[in-house]
Amino acid sequence: MRGPRPEPAEEPPDREWEQDLLLAAAYVSDAQYNRNVPFETSPRAIRLYYFYNHWTLRVATYVFICVDLSLALFEEPALFPLPFLATSIVEVLCLTAFFGRLVHFAKVTPQMVFWKDTKNICILVTIALTLLDLIIYGSLEAVQIRGIRWSRAFRPVFLINFPESRQIRRALRSLRNTLPDILYVFLLFMFSVLIFSLMALKLFGDRGLKTAEGSPYLTNILEIAFELYVLVTTANSPDVMMPAYDFNRWYSLYFIAYIIINTYIFMSVFLAVVYNNYRKHLKNEIRKLVYLKRHKMMEAFKILKVKVGTEFVVREAEWKRLARMVVPDISSSHLELLWRISDEGQKGHVDRMNFLRLADLLNIQVVTVNIRKHPLEAWAPRVYQSSASLFVQRMVRHRAFVWVYDVIILVNAVFIALDERSLFISRAEWFFLCLYVAEILLKLYTYEPRAYLGRKQFWNWFDILIIIAALVATVANATIQSARRYNSQQVLDIVLILRILRLLRVIVSIQRFRVIVTTLVNIGPTVLTFAGLVFVVYYAFAIVGMEVFQGKVRFFDPNFTSPDALVCGNPALRGSAFARARYCKNNFNDLASAFLLLTELTVVNQWHVIAGGFALATHQAAKLYFIFFHVVVVILIVNIFIAFILEAFFVAYSLEKSELETVIEKKIQELGVGIQEEEEQDKKPTDNVGSKDGGSSGGDGDHGGAAAKGLYCRIASNKYRTVDALLQRMFESEIAPDEEDPSLDEILSFSPSDMYVKNPNFENSA
Amino acid sequence: MRGPRPEPAEEPPDREWEQDLLLAAAYVSDAQYNRNVPFETSPRAIRLYYFYNHWTLRVATYVFICVDLSLALFEEPALFPLPFLATSIVEVLCLTAFFGRLVHFAKVTPQMVFWKDTKNICILVTIALTLLDLIIYGSLEAVQIRGIRWSRAFRPVFLINFPESRQIRRALRSLRNTLPDILYVFLLFMFSVLIFSLMALKLFGDRGLKTAEGSPYLTNILEIAFELYVLVTTANSPDVMMPAYDFNRWYSLYFIAYIIINTYIFMSVFLAVVYNNYRKHLKNEIRKLVYLKRHKMMEAFKILKVKVGTEFVVREAEWKRLARMVVPDISSSHLELLWRISDEGQKGHVDRMNFLRLADLLNIQVVTVNIRKHPLEAWAPRVYQSSASLFVQRMVRHRAFVWVYDVIILVNAVFIALDERSLFISRAEWFFLCLYVAEILLKLYTYEPRAYLGRKQFWNWFDILIIIAALVATVANATIQSARRYNSQQVLDIVLILRILRLLRVIVSIQRFRVIVTTLVNIGPTVLTFAGLVFVVYYAFAIVGMEVFQGKVRFFDPNFTSPDALVCGNPALRGSAFARARYCKNNFNDLASAFLLLTELTVVNQWHVIAGGFALATHQAAKLYFIFFHVVVVILIVNIFIAFILEAFFVAYSLEKSELETVIEKKIQELGVGIQEEEEQDKKPTDNVGSKDGGSSGGDGDHGGAAAKGLYCRIASNKYRTVDALLQRMFESEIAPDEEDPSLDEILSFSPSDMYVKNPNFENSA
Repeated sequence: MRGPRPEPAEEPPDREWEQDLLLAAAYVSDAQYNRNVPFETSPRAIRLYYFYNHWTLRVATYVFICVDLSLALFEEPALFPLPFLATSIVEVLCLTAFFGRLVHFAKVTPQMVFWKDTKNICILVTIALTLLDLIIYGSLEAVQIRGIRWSRAFRPVFLINFPESRQIRRALRSLRNTLPDILYVFLLFMFSVLIFSLMALKLFGDRGLKTAEGSPYLTNILEIAFELYVLVTTANSPDVMMPAYDFNRWYSLYFIAYIIINTYIFMSVFLAVVYNNYRKHLKNEIRKLVYLKRHKMMEAFKILKVKVGTEFVVREAEWKRLARMVVPDISSSHLELLWRISDEGQKGHVDRMNFLRLADLLNIQVVTVNIRKHPLEAWAPRVYQSSASLFVQRMVRHRAFVWVYDVIILVNAVFIALDERSLFISRAEWFFLCLYVAEILLKLYTYEPRAYLGRKQFWNWFDILIIIAALVATVANATIQSARRYNSQQVLDIVLILRILRLLRVIVSIQRFRVIVTTLVNIGPTVLTFAGLVFVVYYAFAIVGMEVFQGKVRFFDPNFTSPDALVCGNPALRGSAFARARYCKNNFNDLASAFLLLTELTVVNQWHVIAGGFALATHQAAKLYFIFFHVVVVILIVNIFIAFILEAFFVAYSLEKSELETVIEKKIQELGVGIQEEEEQDKKPTDNVGSKDGGSSGGDGDHGGAAAKGLYCRIASNKYRTVDALLQRMFESEIAPDEEDPSLDEILSFSPSDMYVKNPNFENSA
Repeated sequence: MRGPRPEPAEEPPDREWEQDLLLAAAYVSDAQYNRNVPFETSPRAIRLYYFYNHWTLRVATYVFICVDLSLALFEEPALFPLPFLATSIVEVLCLTAFFGRLVHFAKVTPQMVFWKDTKNICILVTIALTLLDLIIYGSLEAVQIRGIRWSRAFRPVFLINFPESRQIRRALRSLRNTLPDILYVFLLFMFSVLIFSLMALKLFGDRGLKTAEGSPYLTNILEIAFELYVLVTTANSPDVMMPAYDFNRWYSLYFIAYIIINTYIFMSVFLAVVYNNYRKHLKNEIRKLVYLKRHKMMEAFKILKVKVGTEFVVREAEWKRLARMVVPDISSSHLELLWRISDEGQKGHVDRMNFLRLADLLNIQVVTVNIRKHPLEAWAPRVYQSSASLFVQRMVRHRAFVWVYDVIILVNAVFIALDERSLFISRAEWFFLCLYVAEILLKLYTYEPRAYLGRKQFWNWFDILIIIAALVATVANATIQSARRYNSQQVLDIVLILRILRLLRVIVSIQRFRVIVTTLVNIGPTVLTFAGLVFVVYYAFAIVGMEVFQGKVRFFDPNFTSPDALVCGNPALRGSAFARARYCKNNFNDLASAFLLLTELTVVNQWHVIAGGFALATHQAAKLYFIFFHVVVVILIVNIFIAFILEAFFVAYSLEKSELETVIEKKIQELGVGIQEEEEQDKKPTDNVGSKDGGSSGGDGDHGGAAAKGLYCRIASNKYRTVDALLQRMFESEIAPDEEDPSLDEILSFSPSDMYVKNPNFENSA
């Protein structure tokens, strides 16, 4: 199961080649025919364009964005305080870098396009505002007046608006598009909460009931509305009901009705509306993207086409120059393969349809498999092929080997759970470590090491890294311990965690688990988009929260015996639920604390206690901040997150391999350079189980090839393909090849409502 | 907006006619040709079948089921105690009734089919077990030993297994089908919780930390696992983190990782798996149903067919006899219409395709619209048509009339929020009541009363009922008050609630709100399925809980000063979070309390406090009961509920009118009896806005027709159509009309995996 896999020789990432191809086409043709193209194609302009897209500049931009965002750590209220002068100089530096990047972008983009793009305007405005704010704050500082650095909340604008963060922007757009639809549901929901608040006021207001803490129960309409809003999040259930329920059992019906209507129905409707909009707009975005891609490829085709017979085609020479220009380091065999796939009739030229496929072809990871002998075999063939050596190899390849190690891992788990202070247990730990190291060495002995440690052998790498890290940490800990006679807390913590993470290896052995984990890993990259989105929203909220609430709640060390320690340094909190629950460390006194507090608010539970605490510490209106956060993060973003996970799962379930790849695979088979899968089937029988599993593993096309000899081409696994790419493929197959293409303007103004559903059939809605 | 609509003359409910048609076909043909049909078709057998389906017997069965289930209210621990003898006699009576019903069913069903059906076996076994339990318990009772009435937990079996509860059964089946898939995710999830538990033990176990209550923090592996499971439900966030966070801020990373992986990712995956299975199995069930329907209709066709020319057809005489037999009260005009739709070429017979449509045709609600004059116009035309009267009518029909009343309602809301003990406010209440009554009278004056109060005029009925109820209750309250000088609490509560519910009328005025509410109302009937499912699960859990936990926790009146009152009558609870939160009334001491407690557990928040309380009061193992409840209800049932709401919303969004209805509408237009919609467009311009709204109103086909005169046919609105029916229609349109029909056995053994997705296109997954 943890068998070796062939090493992938090259792995171009999934990227959009269209723009590059279009420019290259202009360049190639310019040099030859000097045709008229609608943009500047001087060698200098194209070099400038490539330079703009160079990875060093991209990385530099991200570094500056990170520096700019992390400034909040050093500004008042700071985790590591720095003087205003230092932070402001760094900020101006960052702004300059952003401005420079923007100017560069303007140079490589037509004027019209540049100024029509709101992204660029956003960046410019934010730079201007930040400078203004810096000047105002600096001058106020100079005359000893404490100003507010309000522009800091806009810093995420840089993160969002640089062209590299397309995913985050799309998530934000999806959010914005959902707003109008959700607004009406939200208003209806608020109306329902208000109606119920009025009822609660009338039913319970005059009863003279008391809560468990002895305060009056539901007497004020604003307080009732807040309590009922909290009940929607279930955070104060069942406490808010208990006094009424104790008084009369029938009053519980009121609360049950409220929970069914507002918590269950309305919250599900929010999810449904968000999900529906997400799907609708996702489809539209993908459609736009696909058409835009086609449009650019068509332009490139128009530039390069020559008339042969009755049809326009692109000749082999131009085609190859184009490909080489766009991917300078493409191997000849790879290029030849792509050409033979494109030029179906071997006529020496490609027609429009086949030319359009070029961008996709470049994205398909054709891996040149180098099947090598084990180095030991090459170095000492006699020893390696001896019967004892072969026996060891057979043993390691046997299923029982995996099972034995699974048992060892489970026994190890029991030992970990036991008290490690006993000498026997700590000795056993060394024993287990030796066993694991032995396993890895045996495997490296049996399988070809470069194949075993191939770039895509996620689980093998996981094994090795965990073991090496555990080994290093355990040795380090033992050294420190014997040298200074004490355990370093940090090192020990790391050792402990690594020791436990080793247990995860059991997952690898159970196929069903592996499938689920693989699906989760596939979703991973796009989940990071949401991490970006959440970061942007958190950052803005954290900055606002820090300005408003800094220093209102303070944490004292438990050993510190100040009378203020129990009320978080704020007498207004005396007797409050916030102080009683010891929430003092949940505060806005620096960026890290603020982020953690916002995380707690996202988890929802006890958010009303936190909101109540800060409201007591400052003003009742502070609750609005927390309600607003709840609406934005929990009702909108978390629901989009759930919608995304659902969609990603469905796509992963419903699709195995895209059509185009199957075409290429067929071609590879035809050209006789494919790997005969049957040949190795018997060697590693468990390796292919994944792909039988309804595609939920994302179609594990990663069949081993260590046994045969020679040079082979192979389609790399689409395991790490994103949901996005899958959706694009699916939509592409829907466009009729000879369909009339919409114009660029039409494409840019596509809206989800004009996406005509021809014949709503059973499949698509059930 | 609250304008009048024509009165529907007849409204057959959506039901399955196939079985009836098949039997009737056999009967009709038997009388004439005496053919050989594969089941008994003697007039007696058919009469027995109709009697079995008669509504009185159905209602009687439900009454017996209700009585049987409600016995738990009267048995120990009882809300209203009755002696064992009384309850057991009633139970035996119910069992006899169930047995009788089953015998009746056996009589009208072929032997083979009856015994192959697990439903019938289930009922028989449950009856036997219940009798056994009754005998054992009775004999133990006789010798003064307290037994356990374990069979009570099986009572919901009767509710589930009678053929009438098809919906609940399907939901349960969908649950059962999801289990295998969800099991692996659940195991992986538990594995992840255990790994994290081990880490927590190692990281925090030896630190000597204390919780806010001063108890040791995360020292025992079982306790840690429970706390971490609770953290998945977010119920103890952030409390469980605070001690570690206070100790060292970096430990918060552990909890954040835990929450992201287990709370967000795994819970979303549960939803995705449940949803995916729900869709898959829903499709399969619908497919089965559709094919079964076709199969039965084909059988009926085979029985009735005669050869005319080259093809087999059914002649008009038989067709009409069949329809009349199945729907004895069908009007001649309706039958004639259906015939003319079926017999497209007016040949005097229908072919196979058109015959198959009969079951659907019978389901379509063709409404004979009777457009009448206003009774006042008929009675005193001069006065009613006078200029003053016409002015009043124009005024009422004007939009401003609605706006004025919306303002009045909002002013009323403000008055309600104010203190009603002031004399001015209570007088104002009468004033508002008068205004509302005046509104209704004016509307009745303007619109035709029978149309205004048509059976489907949901909002008009809502208006009138609320106002009349408020009027009656207010008058009753005033009478009691003036007669006895005190307010009756119950009456006053009702008056208050009715007064506030009046505010809901604002929703009616705002189109967007109305659309959302209509969609919610459409979903309503199927949501009741879930109410049934939840009831079944609650009932079983409540019975078990009552047997295990009765009397362990008791509630004392707040005025009662026993020292036990604060610890819920159980000294083990002293100092527990359960007693501190005053949760004593959350107990299992009778069915009503148990149901409420289970509702609180479903809402999740504080469930660990309740579980902890009962664990203290009995044994730590009691927590397993609560964890099991959480897994079943929250992870499975609530997710299915959400999946259902999502699906229902998407179906409602994606479909407006089914094809078949459009065909009939066209036919009605052709036959010249349709209502000219344009005619009335100008009269009530706002009435049609709903249908423009992307079908989210469920296709409001309910166009008014009070203006014109005469008798019209009209397709009734499909507003109240269920999601189920919509899905069936959609699937039907997918089956090719001349497709080879699968055999009955094949149909019954359809499984979702053999549903071949021909060409997974973009629409169905994005």
